[in-house]
Amino acid sequence: MSQMNIPKSSFPRIVIVGGGFGGISLVNALRKSEVQVVLLDMHNYHTFQPLLYQVSTGGLEPDSIAYPLRKVLQDYPNFYFRMAKVEEVRPKKGVIVTDIGSLDYDHLVIATGSKTNFFGNENIMRHAMQMKTVPQSLDLRSMILENFEEAILTDDLHQRNALMNFVIVGAGPTGVELAGALAEIKKGILPKDYPDLDTRMAQINLVQGSDRVLPAMSPIASEKAEDYLQKLGVHVWKNVRVTDYDGSVVKTNTDLEFETATVVWAAGVTGTAVNGLSVEDCKAAGNRLHVDEFSRVKGYENIYAIGDIACMNLADYPYGHPMMAQPAIQQGKALGKNLIRQVHGRQMHGFSYKDKGSMATIGRNKAVVDLKNVKFQGVFAWFVWMFVHLFFLIGFRNRAVVFINWVYNYIRFDREARLIIRPYKKK
Amino acid sequence: MSQMNIPKSSFPRIVIVGGGFGGISLVNALRKSEVQVVLLDMHNYHTFQPLLYQVSTGGLEPDSIAYPLRKVLQDYPNFYFRMAKVEEVRPKKGVIVTDIGSLDYDHLVIATGSKTNFFGNENIMRHAMQMKTVPQSLDLRSMILENFEEAILTDDLHQRNALMNFVIVGAGPTGVELAGALAEIKKGILPKDYPDLDTRMAQINLVQGSDRVLPAMSPIASEKAEDYLQKLGVHVWKNVRVTDYDGSVVKTNTDLEFETATVVWAAGVTGTAVNGLSVEDCKAAGNRLHVDEFSRVKGYENIYAIGDIACMNLADYPYGHPMMAQPAIQQGKALGKNLIRQVHGRQMHGFSYKDKGSMATIGRNKAVVDLKNVKFQGVFAWFVWMFVHLFFLIGFRNRAVVFINWVYNYIRFDREARLIIRPYKKK
Repeated sequence: MSQMNIPKSSFPRIVIVGGGFGGISLVNALRKSEVQVVLLDMHNYHTFQPLLYQVSTGGLEPDSIAYPLRKVLQDYPNFYFRMAKVEEVRPKKGVIVTDIGSLDYDHLVIATGSKTNFFGNENIMRHAMQMKTVPQSLDLRSMILENFEEAILTDDLHQRNALMNFVIVGAGPTGVELAGALAEIKKGILPKDYPDLDTRMAQINLVQGSDRVLPAMSPIASEKAEDYLQKLGVHVWKNVRVTDYDGSVVKTNTDLEFETATVVWAAGVTGTAVNGLSVEDCKAAGNRLHVDEFSRVKGYENIYAIGDIACMNLADYPYGHPMMAQPAIQQGKALGKNLIRQVHGRQMHGFSYKDKGSMATIGRNKAVVDLKNVKFQGVFAWFVWMFVHLFFLIGFRNRAVVFINWVYNYIRFDREARLIIRPYKKK
Repeated sequence: MSQMNIPKSSFPRIVIVGGGFGGISLVNALRKSEVQVVLLDMHNYHTFQPLLYQVSTGGLEPDSIAYPLRKVLQDYPNFYFRMAKVEEVRPKKGVIVTDIGSLDYDHLVIATGSKTNFFGNENIMRHAMQMKTVPQSLDLRSMILENFEEAILTDDLHQRNALMNFVIVGAGPTGVELAGALAEIKKGILPKDYPDLDTRMAQINLVQGSDRVLPAMSPIASEKAEDYLQKLGVHVWKNVRVTDYDGSVVKTNTDLEFETATVVWAAGVTGTAVNGLSVEDCKAAGNRLHVDEFSRVKGYENIYAIGDIACMNLADYPYGHPMMAQPAIQQGKALGKNLIRQVHGRQMHGFSYKDKGSMATIGRNKAVVDLKNVKFQGVFAWFVWMFVHLFFLIGFRNRAVVFINWVYNYIRFDREARLIIRPYKKK
């Protein structure tokens, strides 16, 4: 295996795997420090995952929620980026092996995030759509639009309904936000775009295994969100688990079945683990790496994990922090400071998570927000949701373009990026 | 072959193949008339082709230069859209056959535009990139960025230079604009994005068979454009014809050879003809359909052709009108009026082309404009170029987003959509 051609420097080398919220936050914390940083990612861009559902539903361009990783590192000497797929870590040698060569590290940070969890159901994996990356979200966008183009061609009522029937599995923020967006499209766009199709027959089904939507949020948020969804015409099915999908019929653990051409699987995620870190010691539930309060992977001195992939089970979070942007951002920042402390021979500080709350949007003027001391819903929550998402987007241009789109979509009840750029079904 | 399920109406049915500049202009001219309109296109969107080079070079999102065709037809009764690929016309039966079924027409309009002309060279067709559609432009964007990611990995100077070496064949507006954009990227973005790569070695070569760039424009425009290109560091090779490219070496009709991983073929277009229209009668040079002054394809009573595919050789344009947006737009509008006249039993009017001039941009503050009575170059020409392109873009949202991007790119000397969303080489 050839060596990656990163020059040696007199500073310790920190290799970061993954340019998501955690990786970027760590990179920013290490700027101007006496370290060499090498960032590896399979893509050359950062993805703002919370807005992927808007790409899928034609509300936003993919390019405005992605940001070039090389630009994040610009103008800082001793910062390197390589587009690479990690194959293995060899902790004893202090080497990481990738598809473009191997690389020595002094400190290794695993920030690979999470991927969709199909819980081993291969049928569902083969036939359902997912929304964890930009290409996946664009595939879903294409498929939804292709289904409507197909629905208009057939006189078979059965088939036509299946093509206009959506089943979203999992009522976490992703599932709820997608269901709401589809309901608004059904109401505002489909009748105009398909005057010769009875789009009232389109159905949006949201299936949730537990007894409320948004189970990680407060009961009042769940209640209000379900209320909003119902007002938008979404069929919410609680206490129902999807057990199979063969590409045409969804089976559940109840008598309920759905005939549908589109299943979106948003029912769970699992850590994107890296080969070579010994499994017995490290992997907690959900394929995550057990880390201590310094984000150090258990059993290793100089290997760290942050974000979705890390399971830091402190007293207040016995199952690790929630797998979302905030813990990743805070852990990245804290680890950056700790690595600098370590380089200078100082004591590291234990991580403590500052819960900034959580939120979800269901549709125009409809959102739910849980903060530590206050919970609110409705128009104001919706403005807060938008403001927070604009704030955390990376890059001024992205913010401006997303803002323009949101204003336009709001005023015009429209989503103009309903384009089948790369067909998904007809390749 | 099944019938397409478009309801019969008491009005004559006009089937339009292609939703480019010509097709859209015709659709707009037919609004509120006593006709049924069926628009067919392979894509569900209109493409603003003059800005595709900015998609390729990361300056614009694909979604902001495309526009949903169904939205063009919205709110008009008796207007239908079908995403379909035309397989054949059967003029005697008055039927068009597509991959989604066949359809009777009273009037048929061919507005299929043009595609890249490789002049039968299969090697070049296999290895060169082209820029006539959104997916092609995105492929080129991915490939350029992948080449730089690859260049940084190799210690082989030869290979590295080939990866950073661009050969653009054809110095029409597309070739010139792409060369200028790449030169600006080389100057403004590459050194910052790839501090560990000697990007000064990147070369942009523009190869032109005749003795000047922009041969369809005035001599002063050609001269000025070449001057701008040279100032930007583009190598302009005139009177050189590319004869072969095997994926690594470009051969020409002279001693000149280029080692390069990227060839963009912008050396010619040819009509996207439709099967079934008898060739002897209709096809002029460049695979175009001969039409009379009413845009009627020669030999047929109720088949018309507009835009790039049409060759209307009147006295002032013995080889047909230039294959660009303006003739298509004007022919579409004129044909719309003529079809309405015909429906009402009135006399059709012969087409006369109003030359609104032509223009090309080379880089920031650098453009050339030829109007009928005045020709100018420089900053003012550049503003005119931008204004005209914004004006002809379809949709307010697209205009706003493109404008924001241009302002941002201008102020920051940047192009942030440098994202490898779908890798081209590593699939």
